Amino acid sequence: MSHTVEILSVGTELLLGNIVNSDAQALSRELSGLGLNVLYHSVVGDNPERLRAAVELARSRADVLITTGGLGPTCDDLTKQTLAEAFGKQMVYHPECARRIQCYFAQSGREMTENNLQQAYLPEGCTVLDNDWGTAPGCAFEEAGTHVVMLPGPPSECLPMFRERAVPYLSRLSEGVIRSRTLRVFGLGESAVESLLRDRMNTLANPTLAPYAKEGEVELRITAKADTAEAADSLIAPIEAEVRGILGELIYGADVSGLEQAVLDGLRERGLTLGTAESCTGGFIAKRITDVPGSASVFKGGVVSYHCEVKAGVLGVSQALLDEKSAVCAEVAEQMAQGARRVLGCDVAVSVTGVAGPDPDDRGNPVGLVYTALAAPDGCWVKKLNLASHNARRDRTRNLAVNHALDMVRRWLEGLDPASDSTKEAEG
Amino acid sequence: MSHTVEILSVGTELLLGNIVNSDAQALSRELSGLGLNVLYHSVVGDNPERLRAAVELARSRADVLITTGGLGPTCDDLTKQTLAEAFGKQMVYHPECARRIQCYFAQSGREMTENNLQQAYLPEGCTVLDNDWGTAPGCAFEEAGTHVVMLPGPPSECLPMFRERAVPYLSRLSEGVIRSRTLRVFGLGESAVESLLRDRMNTLANPTLAPYAKEGEVELRITAKADTAEAADSLIAPIEAEVRGILGELIYGADVSGLEQAVLDGLRERGLTLGTAESCTGGFIAKRITDVPGSASVFKGGVVSYHCEVKAGVLGVSQALLDEKSAVCAEVAEQMAQGARRVLGCDVAVSVTGVAGPDPDDRGNPVGLVYTALAAPDGCWVKKLNLASHNARRDRTRNLAVNHALDMVRRWLEGLDPASDSTKEAEG
Repeated sequence: MSHTVEILSVGTELLLGNIVNSDAQALSRELSGLGLNVLYHSVVGDNPERLRAAVELARSRADVLITTGGLGPTCDDLTKQTLAEAFGKQMVYHPECARRIQCYFAQSGREMTENNLQQAYLPEGCTVLDNDWGTAPGCAFEEAGTHVVMLPGPPSECLPMFRERAVPYLSRLSEGVIRSRTLRVFGLGESAVESLLRDRMNTLANPTLAPYAKEGEVELRITAKADTAEAADSLIAPIEAEVRGILGELIYGADVSGLEQAVLDGLRERGLTLGTAESCTGGFIAKRITDVPGSASVFKGGVVSYHCEVKAGVLGVSQALLDEKSAVCAEVAEQMAQGARRVLGCDVAVSVTGVAGPDPDDRGNPVGLVYTALAAPDGCWVKKLNLASHNARRDRTRNLAVNHALDMVRRWLEGLDPASDSTKEAEG
Repeated sequence: MSHTVEILSVGTELLLGNIVNSDAQALSRELSGLGLNVLYHSVVGDNPERLRAAVELARSRADVLITTGGLGPTCDDLTKQTLAEAFGKQMVYHPECARRIQCYFAQSGREMTENNLQQAYLPEGCTVLDNDWGTAPGCAFEEAGTHVVMLPGPPSECLPMFRERAVPYLSRLSEGVIRSRTLRVFGLGESAVESLLRDRMNTLANPTLAPYAKEGEVELRITAKADTAEAADSLIAPIEAEVRGILGELIYGADVSGLEQAVLDGLRERGLTLGTAESCTGGFIAKRITDVPGSASVFKGGVVSYHCEVKAGVLGVSQALLDEKSAVCAEVAEQMAQGARRVLGCDVAVSVTGVAGPDPDDRGNPVGLVYTALAAPDGCWVKKLNLASHNARRDRTRNLAVNHALDMVRRWLEGLDPASDSTKEAEG
């Protein structure tokens, strides 16, 4: 029997938009990994009638109900009480839970108010899920075919509670294993990717193949279910090979977090260092690279040459060139990348210069005109881009420019032409 | 009549935990600001039967239904079709929408596949919500007492579509005018802000006063409802004065987009230029500054000195100092800021050096130890920060460091001590 899950999150702060429902995301990921199908997320406020109705609904359409939130000590926290009523259970005082709560306060040096002991009341007959990350214990029980698991709301408690306490309870329910592999594609839009793959996607049932648009790129997820991880992986492998046959060099990585990760991994393998020279992206390439823990072993640094005098003074771009052709041209991009390589002492440098908008620059270059360059030991390549769209958004244009710059490094690492749709190729 | 809202998000990627439902959060915030009560969030996958059932449920318990997602060109995108059926409407081809989509592709230089024109089919009699941020148009209609608004899923489209297209439609549902003013606070946590203001907040009905925690800062929103904008504003003014009396210099701006905006506005007014020198933030300060359109009139550029040889070679930080005290100390922060001022030729420079984690650095400096410095014509200030928390996250630490650096400039501009809780103050 295949189990279906609903995640019911309780908290007015979610409905006010005060916080994002990251619990639902984190749990969904974990549950999918366990082979349980999450079919619904729902959110209600701290209101007993609406919570009660949401529980009845969840019972009717899923057989595993996971709640997050509403386990705390304040009068708003009514999840346990309401769920116990809905499933016809008494609340029972658990002295061991009370001792843990008292102990938690003693250890953290905070004073415990009396209402904290309310948290030691749990539905009769439940499995107590001890909370080592906060005060409110969770619990789990089965009643009339429905499995109920209640977890605390704060993400720093919810996810470890799930992994350490709920998974042992839930793993009994799951048959088989779900595995997935994510191929990442840059250089083609979601609809174009889908039209290349549609016929094949429609014939697939296990594994499934689904595209997801991300800002400036596309993820393709292949998901298989089988009795063992090995069996699931061997269902995935031929589909991956088939997709790679169709999309080829547009796939920049599998199960990587993004282009920055792919670039860092590739350079690290080859023992090479990286630097950046940025104008319109204004530090965004460097920021994305240094988002990745451990980037320091590859990334030496960057220059954000927003004004022309920094391009000339720090990176050594020719002032005559800047005067004659403006900062937005192929030659400036090239000199920026070469200057960064020299000034930062790195093996490979990328540069970006262009017009992020919302307005054209003072030399009349249009919004979205961007040049990216790559300077490497074996040459220098420049790519001209037109990133303008119907209503160019500055952050979208900048993010796309970063992707193009990073993809030039990735292509160079793979021995492909770094500037495949370039207008100019220069020797370094 | 008070309207109640359900936000129904459509997308299997949400149920797989592939992405977080940030649309529901962003829209909830905006809707609360409009005086509409959000009572439910729900999420279903790309499945017509479950979507249809979720729509019927939403109709029965809310009178405004806002959907996100499922408007795209692929066969998974079934929101419009399913909603049209649920409300007994035909789908009608809108040539004007088709032209906009074709235009979008033509301008961005991408090839349009035929399936993109599916997006031009919309329920009969609806108000078309043009999408200037992507290809899929949204729509809105009323049927049998239920207002339906459909928005695209990508957050970069959903939120601007809501603000620019859905709000004019929805504001008709709310009587009177709602105005709000947002005070932005840096340097105190949400619960501390709330306990300072709680008594006053509890006595207020119109206007309301509500704190929202943002990463590393707090927003205080004062919202008033009245017959005219002027009347609403005059309800807000005395509350703003009262809050300013309580929080004083912790308020860095009103109705500004963030610290970077406040800093750029202040420097521009004084005709001063800015530069940055970044180590652990790796370009994040420069990125946030250049996120703001028009930043080029103030921001000259920055140096990302991730490796020590860039700190020494480009910024002129003393190699002996780096060897002796490591890169994470007050003196290095100071020399970085002064070096940036000199190399970039700017009036004011900020620097950051520290350990973003997840691991301590190779000199044993702990995660979260960060120094920020400000070099200005009248002196140089350094601030020592401990940004470690119970479960330190690299991106959180980096973002907080950026806020502290920017707040030093803001405080200097306002004539306050730039390093109010510093351990060291040096003359430049």
